[in-house]
Amino acid sequence: MAGDDTPPELARLRASIDNLDAAIIHMLAERFKLTRDVGVLKARTTLPPADPEREKRQVARLRALADEAGLEPEFAEKFLAFVIAEVLHHHETIARAQTTDT
Amino acid sequence: MAGDDTPPELARLRASIDNLDAAIIHMLAERFKLTRDVGVLKARTTLPPADPEREKRQVARLRALADEAGLEPEFAEKFLAFVIAEVLHHHETIARAQTTDT
Repeated sequence: MAGDDTPPELARLRASIDNLDAAIIHMLAERFKLTRDVGVLKARTTLPPADPEREKRQVARLRALADEAGLEPEFAEKFLAFVIAEVLHHHETIARAQTTDT
Repeated sequence: MAGDDTPPELARLRASIDNLDAAIIHMLAERFKLTRDVGVLKARTTLPPADPEREKRQVARLRALADEAGLEPEFAEKFLAFVIAEVLHHHETIARAQTTDT
């Protein structure tokens, strides 16, 4: 993959970054399966789609976990917002598909 | 954590989402340690900070991995852009700190 001019130390670091990215992508794939299940469950019951209290708890927890792990808490909060935006996008896609199917 | 009115199935799904989020946050913390090392290595050598060819390979690889894992390739690409923006932010912070120290 790397050209001949890539120093071995850089190639080693990049290989580790690539391994972590693969792991993160696979965990995100699992996470979106779970949020799809949550969406189906909420549609089946009388639960509202959004839950601000749950979201507040998630933000506080991820900020604390990030801080412990040496990551900026602000980044953890941005990350959660980024993922939740995608979850909403999925839910909209599902809603549109259901409308089309009717 | 959950109120009494949370259905057990929803609580179960949320617990799994929380576990995955914790794992992802910890892997991101490791990933940023590695990109910091890359930044230090590049600063020590004559390597340019940005490497568009490396980035192109990363995008193609993550899109393929996402597709295999049942995740939208577009999301994987957005995720990488989100993380790289944070890496650049870290590098700028380090550069500012070095200027201040001089």
